[in-house]
Amino acid sequence: MSVIIRKATREDVPALFDLINELAIFEKAPEQVTNTIEKMYEDGFEENPIFGCIVSEWEGEVVGMALHYNRYSTWKGRRLYLEDLIVSEKMRGKGLGEKLLEATIQEARDTNCTGLMWQVLDWNEPAINFYKKFGVRLDEGWINVHLDF
Amino acid sequence: MSVIIRKATREDVPALFDLINELAIFEKAPEQVTNTIEKMYEDGFEENPIFGCIVSEWEGEVVGMALHYNRYSTWKGRRLYLEDLIVSEKMRGKGLGEKLLEATIQEARDTNCTGLMWQVLDWNEPAINFYKKFGVRLDEGWINVHLDF
Repeated sequence: MSVIIRKATREDVPALFDLINELAIFEKAPEQVTNTIEKMYEDGFEENPIFGCIVSEWEGEVVGMALHYNRYSTWKGRRLYLEDLIVSEKMRGKGLGEKLLEATIQEARDTNCTGLMWQVLDWNEPAINFYKKFGVRLDEGWINVHLDF
Repeated sequence: MSVIIRKATREDVPALFDLINELAIFEKAPEQVTNTIEKMYEDGFEENPIFGCIVSEWEGEVVGMALHYNRYSTWKGRRLYLEDLIVSEKMRGKGLGEKLLEATIQEARDTNCTGLMWQVLDWNEPAINFYKKFGVRLDEGWINVHLDF
């Protein structure tokens, strides 16, 4: 058995939405998911999509995802941003997260971005140590400000 | 004399680039600006632009800018992100920043975003107090992770 890493297609949307909800339940915040399958079709798989996604498939089932989109730095220009990297709980510890991150780095290079960015919580030491192996630069002390409509 | 708040056009790019560099010099990091005027034309004012921008004009001169683009939350869907809000040093304290922020909130509403987001450094109390007046939600403790190519 082996893992397939590939770009997500329209047909993957229900599986992506399941992974998103699995994570929200794991984080005890399922009520915070106000996104819908219909909006994900529209926002990712019609004309001028806002996001792209890479998935990991195991025995025909989508068991991991890395959702990304372009951002723009006034200083550095076009960047790729990794919004969410999710691996289904039953499939953790098999290196799928690393494969998804590597494929997202490649996507950033292939699309002429000047870099890849993501966020990590400052108390999440295992994740920070994992990322350091990739040679990242850490920019600390930020608050995300949200104005929800 | 009055201020005009309007969407940026292609003709504004040199003025935007001046404001970006003015801020970088103020922050003692001008060498970190690797972006160029040519790339800004391409990335913001051709087909499928990555970013949009609102400017404030005073006596025919662009003296402030608020650069924004779409982001995508797996939980909340389409968001607008305010990357940079810059007001030329000589024009500070006249409420231009507030007007640019208000216009960006309106842009997010007009484009059916579920909210507007931005970032602030955790030591920047005056800015945090200013934002609180808009009814924002603060999400603390984040590190921005960069992989520069």
